[in-house]
Amino acid sequence: MSQSLRLGVAGLGTVGAAVVRMVARRAAALAAATGRDIRVVAVSSRDRTRDRGFDVAGLHWFDDPVEMARSAEVDCVVELIGGSEGPAKAVVEAALAAGKPVVTANKALLALHGAALAKSAETAGVALAYEAAVAGGIPVIKAIREGLAGNAVSRVYGIMNGTCNYILTRMEREGLTFEACLKDAQALGYAEADPTFDVEGFDTAHKLAILTSLAFGTSIDAEGVSVEGISGVKPLDLRMAEELGYRIKLLGVAQATEAGIEQRVHPTMVPKSSSIAQVMGVTNAVTIDADAVGELTLIGPGAGGEATASAVVADIADLAAGLSRPTFGCPTASLRPAERVEMQRHEGGYYIRLTVHNRPGVAAGVATRMAEREISLESILQRRTSEMAESDPKGRSGQPVPLVLITYAATEGNIRAALDAIAGDGLLAEAPQLIRIERE
Amino acid sequence: MSQSLRLGVAGLGTVGAAVVRMVARRAAALAAATGRDIRVVAVSSRDRTRDRGFDVAGLHWFDDPVEMARSAEVDCVVELIGGSEGPAKAVVEAALAAGKPVVTANKALLALHGAALAKSAETAGVALAYEAAVAGGIPVIKAIREGLAGNAVSRVYGIMNGTCNYILTRMEREGLTFEACLKDAQALGYAEADPTFDVEGFDTAHKLAILTSLAFGTSIDAEGVSVEGISGVKPLDLRMAEELGYRIKLLGVAQATEAGIEQRVHPTMVPKSSSIAQVMGVTNAVTIDADAVGELTLIGPGAGGEATASAVVADIADLAAGLSRPTFGCPTASLRPAERVEMQRHEGGYYIRLTVHNRPGVAAGVATRMAEREISLESILQRRTSEMAESDPKGRSGQPVPLVLITYAATEGNIRAALDAIAGDGLLAEAPQLIRIERE
Repeated sequence: MSQSLRLGVAGLGTVGAAVVRMVARRAAALAAATGRDIRVVAVSSRDRTRDRGFDVAGLHWFDDPVEMARSAEVDCVVELIGGSEGPAKAVVEAALAAGKPVVTANKALLALHGAALAKSAETAGVALAYEAAVAGGIPVIKAIREGLAGNAVSRVYGIMNGTCNYILTRMEREGLTFEACLKDAQALGYAEADPTFDVEGFDTAHKLAILTSLAFGTSIDAEGVSVEGISGVKPLDLRMAEELGYRIKLLGVAQATEAGIEQRVHPTMVPKSSSIAQVMGVTNAVTIDADAVGELTLIGPGAGGEATASAVVADIADLAAGLSRPTFGCPTASLRPAERVEMQRHEGGYYIRLTVHNRPGVAAGVATRMAEREISLESILQRRTSEMAESDPKGRSGQPVPLVLITYAATEGNIRAALDAIAGDGLLAEAPQLIRIERE
Repeated sequence: MSQSLRLGVAGLGTVGAAVVRMVARRAAALAAATGRDIRVVAVSSRDRTRDRGFDVAGLHWFDDPVEMARSAEVDCVVELIGGSEGPAKAVVEAALAAGKPVVTANKALLALHGAALAKSAETAGVALAYEAAVAGGIPVIKAIREGLAGNAVSRVYGIMNGTCNYILTRMEREGLTFEACLKDAQALGYAEADPTFDVEGFDTAHKLAILTSLAFGTSIDAEGVSVEGISGVKPLDLRMAEELGYRIKLLGVAQATEAGIEQRVHPTMVPKSSSIAQVMGVTNAVTIDADAVGELTLIGPGAGGEATASAVVADIADLAAGLSRPTFGCPTASLRPAERVEMQRHEGGYYIRLTVHNRPGVAAGVATRMAEREISLESILQRRTSEMAESDPKGRSGQPVPLVLITYAATEGNIRAALDAIAGDGLLAEAPQLIRIERE
């Protein structure tokens, strides 16, 4: 058997502790699979005394993770501190500068500094592995980078934030508001005290930026992602989606278009019969459309200590077995520059829920404005809610009513222009709701 | 850039031709991803003149694939001839004996001779790669071998035969018989003229045997798989499944039990809400239950030239990038012997459809025999079909009627014994139908 691989683990939170336990628990299997003994020899964390389910006594404890990264007794650094700056960045940079491979679960670090770090890894001739950074325990990085090596990818999309999917699932199943479900998610520990990063789509955007670079061979560009969260989704939208044969999911979508690679995160209508529509609760899923394989979908846990550790340990095993692939699938010099595509140019189907004044000619007025922009309508649904029907059975109150449109493929620019014209005509009692449709 | 990897492709059917085209089409991307030029330099097939979408003029043509495998100009042999014996086996053996890595899509060869071939590969210190042998374009071998390296697997199950899933999907959607759907599948090229190998479950059994060895670290044992095909599934069973909240799929299931690893292929009731129940038509899916990751499901194309070639090319790229993992996940000496578990010992839920004489006390008699074997019933459904209701509205004809039972977990031995007792009581007008239930 070759020399053993000695790991230094920086960050002993839920994931870090699970990694240390897993490496010990699976020691024999990992050695059999990779031909090398894999051992955690050093750790670094803020709190030495917490019970993490293993004894730190046999491990070299570093108060400073950067010092650990430079230590001669560590062959490979596992960064599980988190955050795009500060100690996480410092420890990864120190490890690569010392010529040591790095395994990280840090999506923010990769999304914001991935280009520079990939270059450092390349210069050092070592791997920078990040399976755990996207979709937790799902081996989606491996699937795209290695499993689909023979394919040209045309689209990658997925549910990559469990908090949002949990909230949308409960809103759909129980008819609750976003606010009520968010509170429950916080009580259950599925959402942070400040949930902005998750529910407004930024977490998904980081993960999407990583997938985009890998799938399309472009320079990572997290700031080029168009982002819209789920806080504006209403129970009525979920009911309408149900009726029209859709579910609403927060998707991250990267798609090759003539103008470049679209990167967008937004609440999305997906056909109820699609694989991704079945994904409920905190589960994640990623679908890859590619020329040879057609459609490939991976469904699994997007978070949790053990599931995330599973991805970290898979990366560690690959390193031990000598796997060497460029960080984003090809040498950094070969990565094409990211071309940002404005959302105005996005072309697709749209769900548009208008709240219109209940008077004659409104539907005709709306349809005319759509037609002027050459937007074809697949369905128009004008129906009062059951609450309205009860309070005003004859429809004489002039109370605003929802008017729902499903469009065939149209550009977002045309859709927005038509909505502006409709608003200018004084037909709307409220700002319109607009949810993009993603088809299989 | 390192030395180029020169491929010899044996077998130029749909898959072989797609591999040759894909390696050429993706040459630049593959070189960027792996650091090596990958080129097909030699081919071998029976018919030199067929148009395959590429020019064979620049390639060294071998009439004898074994000679090609031994040729000094070939670094890696791609076996796409098929069949467990004859030239396919000879070419793989010759390549390994010559110290050359092999990529194959040949499930029958692996299932029946995998143990010996893995040993030859190990002795030669080269890889024997077979991603394409199981579930076509889905990178499930990679997911289990590498992506779940940190996990202990407890169960693997999946839809691994597109022909069967196509037939079951049409039976379910259109209420047709097995025979009618099989004819259509044959007309569409989804089923062979002699469909036995697919519809009776043997193809799935070969794939399952490969997954079992890899997932559980056991010696491959295709003959240890208990196999039952779909030819006995009736439209009435699909209607009953629908009503009870299930779909019927032909699953291959490998499961760790106290007695050993169960390997079984049979029509299976799966909950309608499960990911695998959504998989329709010729699509394949595999679900892996493992301790750290929980549940991971992969859905994609199970067959087709391009999709299968995608898996072959992924293996080729791994070889070029220097990936080296033991054939079945660990050294052959570490593989545990397969322990066969008799189906009699299988424990699970059962759907039992009895055809009983329509007279008082029958349901009670059936329930009593079940209770004697300590089998608990989750549901009992006694309902005449609509055809019966029409021809005999008052139920006086004494015509046999279906009586459907869903059991809680019970052993197959007890179920069979209870059914024998029921038959001995003279309650049955036909042999019972028995379909196992697989829960998430």
